[in-house]
Amino acid sequence: MKAKIIITPKKAVLDPQGKTVQNALEHMGYSGIQAVHVGKYIEVDLAPGSDREAARKALDQASHRFLSNPIIEDYRLEIVD
Amino acid sequence: MKAKIIITPKKAVLDPQGKTVQNALEHMGYSGIQAVHVGKYIEVDLAPGSDREAARKALDQASHRFLSNPIIEDYRLEIVD
Repeated sequence: MKAKIIITPKKAVLDPQGKTVQNALEHMGYSGIQAVHVGKYIEVDLAPGSDREAARKALDQASHRFLSNPIIEDYRLEIVD
Repeated sequence: MKAKIIITPKKAVLDPQGKTVQNALEHMGYSGIQAVHVGKYIEVDLAPGSDREAARKALDQASHRFLSNPIIEDYRLEIVD
């Protein structure tokens, strides 16, 4: 069982890294790009037989408390088998 | 149309950020964790009506050439509507 956490800057927050990637792609000659957002990806390997709901609760709390900064970032948590 | 690129350290590469997150989760009292991998997440908003194959080709090249470091990182590219 795995948990995947994706942390992205909120849409209203300036994303200089995303802007840099967008510029680089345009310099490569690919122009059909409207915006780029750069965030973090965290993959957690859970022990087999872990309780899915307990894992979700703990990781949701961790995402909110220290993995993301809720003022400027959003996160998505997904648990997959 | 959106492209999602997930860049993670290769399994054989030391991932100190992942180890730190794992330790933090253990300190929070959640122990059912075998490993944590921390990577980057890049979301590219493509102009409506973009050619899917051209976008895939350009982003695949970009991922390989400058978004990831192929020596120590793997990437996954996914194009969604």
